[in-house]
Amino acid sequence: MNTKITKYAIGKLLIILAYLMLIPLLVSIIYREGLTHMLSFIIPIVISFAIGKFLEKSGDINTDFYLKEAMFIVAFGWVIFSVFGSLPLMLTPLEYPTYIDALFEMVSGFTTTGASVARSVEVLPHSIIFWRSLSHLVGGMGILVFTLAILPKTNKHASLIMQAEVPGPTFGKITSKLADTARMLYIIYLVLTAITTIFLLFGGMNLFDSMIYAMSTAGTGGFGNKDISIGFYNSRYIELVLSIAMIAFGINFNVYYYSIFRSFKEGSDSEELRWYLFIIFIANLLVFINIFSMYSDKLYAFTNSLFAVSSIITTTGFVSADFGTWPLFSRLILMLLMFIGGCAGSTAGGLKVSRVIILVKRALNQVRQSQNPKRITLNMLDKKKIDLYTEASVGKYFALYVILFIIFILIVAIDVDDFQTAFTSVATTFNNVGPGIGQFGPITSFADIGYLSKFVLIIAMLMGRLEIFPLLILFNPSTYKHRIK
Amino acid sequence: MNTKITKYAIGKLLIILAYLMLIPLLVSIIYREGLTHMLSFIIPIVISFAIGKFLEKSGDINTDFYLKEAMFIVAFGWVIFSVFGSLPLMLTPLEYPTYIDALFEMVSGFTTTGASVARSVEVLPHSIIFWRSLSHLVGGMGILVFTLAILPKTNKHASLIMQAEVPGPTFGKITSKLADTARMLYIIYLVLTAITTIFLLFGGMNLFDSMIYAMSTAGTGGFGNKDISIGFYNSRYIELVLSIAMIAFGINFNVYYYSIFRSFKEGSDSEELRWYLFIIFIANLLVFINIFSMYSDKLYAFTNSLFAVSSIITTTGFVSADFGTWPLFSRLILMLLMFIGGCAGSTAGGLKVSRVIILVKRALNQVRQSQNPKRITLNMLDKKKIDLYTEASVGKYFALYVILFIIFILIVAIDVDDFQTAFTSVATTFNNVGPGIGQFGPITSFADIGYLSKFVLIIAMLMGRLEIFPLLILFNPSTYKHRIK
Repeated sequence: MNTKITKYAIGKLLIILAYLMLIPLLVSIIYREGLTHMLSFIIPIVISFAIGKFLEKSGDINTDFYLKEAMFIVAFGWVIFSVFGSLPLMLTPLEYPTYIDALFEMVSGFTTTGASVARSVEVLPHSIIFWRSLSHLVGGMGILVFTLAILPKTNKHASLIMQAEVPGPTFGKITSKLADTARMLYIIYLVLTAITTIFLLFGGMNLFDSMIYAMSTAGTGGFGNKDISIGFYNSRYIELVLSIAMIAFGINFNVYYYSIFRSFKEGSDSEELRWYLFIIFIANLLVFINIFSMYSDKLYAFTNSLFAVSSIITTTGFVSADFGTWPLFSRLILMLLMFIGGCAGSTAGGLKVSRVIILVKRALNQVRQSQNPKRITLNMLDKKKIDLYTEASVGKYFALYVILFIIFILIVAIDVDDFQTAFTSVATTFNNVGPGIGQFGPITSFADIGYLSKFVLIIAMLMGRLEIFPLLILFNPSTYKHRIK
Repeated sequence: MNTKITKYAIGKLLIILAYLMLIPLLVSIIYREGLTHMLSFIIPIVISFAIGKFLEKSGDINTDFYLKEAMFIVAFGWVIFSVFGSLPLMLTPLEYPTYIDALFEMVSGFTTTGASVARSVEVLPHSIIFWRSLSHLVGGMGILVFTLAILPKTNKHASLIMQAEVPGPTFGKITSKLADTARMLYIIYLVLTAITTIFLLFGGMNLFDSMIYAMSTAGTGGFGNKDISIGFYNSRYIELVLSIAMIAFGINFNVYYYSIFRSFKEGSDSEELRWYLFIIFIANLLVFINIFSMYSDKLYAFTNSLFAVSSIITTTGFVSADFGTWPLFSRLILMLLMFIGGCAGSTAGGLKVSRVIILVKRALNQVRQSQNPKRITLNMLDKKKIDLYTEASVGKYFALYVILFIIFILIVAIDVDDFQTAFTSVATTFNNVGPGIGQFGPITSFADIGYLSKFVLIIAMLMGRLEIFPLLILFNPSTYKHRIK
């Protein structure tokens, strides 16, 4: 492996992380949280910056790199962000008794999961609350896509990094002028976040809350500053705004990019988008009909249904009502959405709608063929034939996903002696959903889960966010052999 | 579709069914159960025979048929066996208040599931008990493989029937001289059943019990005549005998065929067999270690562990101890085995070991390729390359399996408002496991489940046994069009 480029990239990442941590430090200063809280950011900033500068100097950007290096940088980059990004939490020991708790929280943040080990988030200082939501914002778009946007445009293999990090089975249409594109995507992303903030402000939320909920929504994360999540505000308007925002951030960003830079018609002409909206519509309809009789206020039934569906399919994990009390049918629909997830190339987790489409089309294809072996049907996506390689790799990805899911549950079962808790904790972390309070199990906080499980769930969150493969390279011994100077 | 041949085949099936029902009638006479119970078999025998003869006469065997007809005969054959075979239960209304209950019971019997709607089986007459276990024996080997063994050897397309009915992703090596082979397989099957009966007799079981438990074991079914299943006998010997017998019936029958007619070396040289035994060994080891401290009698811990593992992986469903009290880890291992199932070409249900091997190999292959795109690895099974068509169809089968599983659970959830019950009832029927008492949910009997769910679970059992595709042809409108006279 080319260590020059990896050192440089990791160093650069640490420097960026140091700059990012200046923002919650500023929050700490604004809210006059005192020297202890300020130091809990200042120390990590200094450490990250110093190590980052050292690595940057000893590395070299002007060397070629290939898929292996790209995967390693992506995987190790996420680990390094989480490891150093959790130092402020470790130095704020209120809700984070051990380092693994702090690490869990920040991995949950950067992977936009939103699962928390804090028993109560309402005791946390503003700076930490802000840092948690900011990590969703940064992690949502991808730590390295972000880096690409500020890297020099020299390296011709930089697209490999994007390929390794952006979720979904196909890479999509954006490939040329990568750094430009990445920068553009980040601008669209930040503008949408700002719009969400403004709409929340109109709903009577204060500026701080609006900002953190908008950032968490952008990353489809789920961290907030209220123990009962969005239910706290008890506002149909806020529920509606967040529902629409969550759905918007679950859409492939190519749709926005092309709608803006080419035409709306070209941008929105995506089969995945149509299926995504169709699934949301149908799920919402089914849940609404199912819970209709439970609510005297039918508008409340509607916003609750819409909110739950949007929150779960985009793997955000905000909660407006305790859907643990809903009938099993509705809870199963929501559980299903959790596994489907949002669109490829969005900030959402899960299997991704396009993968699910391909899986379903393949299965139906097999049904047709079983009854008429001579008729060969080709599966189409966006009016183009899905190439067999993509088809097969989606099938394999699904098998691998299921295998890992089983392994995670088996390990968690050593700690936890309840099927629902074990299943829920793996399902919500591996799909990067997060809280999922009270719906599939009694999990409101991951505080009481054992350390073995916490460690396994950290791996699950990272694998879920990076779609398994890049992270596996860290476990491959050959990665650390044959270092080319 | 060629209706001549389908009429002939269905007619022939009904006549065979009539003959088969003579056996429980004989049991009824031996046990002097009285005229009512005898009539409950005599009437269905007369009806089946009469309709069977009529269809046989109006049909014609000397016409060609193709995959479509073969699939239709297989699917419709199983339905007709269940529909007419459940008449004796309907006429014995003790535990079967409605016809759908009787139908559920016999579909469960012929598909070797063993799930029962009877609240107590101990009140049932001997004749019905015998008929239930006999249905396991007949269904285990396949209703139509059985038919093939007695059909004239003229039809060159008869192998299509076997292909549509014998479980597993690959058809295996046996193709020529099909009727001979089928006859031979049935003889091996019956001899193994007889050996099991004798071993049970040695353990102090009476002749009747030995026969019904041997028949249920042969079909890896699960019906018995005791409400607490094998736990009733409280015998380490019987538990051991049944464990070994269940494992034996979960092996591909080709292994026995080749071991006897060629050489043991050739017969037993099967990668699937090695994996099957390895999975049993590992699962047993893990469960034993996990439950070791719960039992003062360590031999009892061992036989319970072995019995549970053998019973679940072969999808038999006998129970020797309430593993509902075991730690979650053990229960998850058992749940996993339920989905893996036995070997292809055995009487067991589930996904089948060979499919699981292919799925795992594909997934690992994808992992290797993700890190080294230039290295193309071919997956091997039995030292031969798995052809890409088989590989892909296993992947698609798995996707379809998951999709159907989800649909079944969603429909059952309309009736049942408990996740464990809904999940367990679908998992145990779709995998043809059966009881699964108290382990994944509070299901000991399917009596209290609503009729919508019962109907869906009937479909699930049939789809599980026929591996989905043949049954789908019954739902395809084009099947009933373009009838060629």
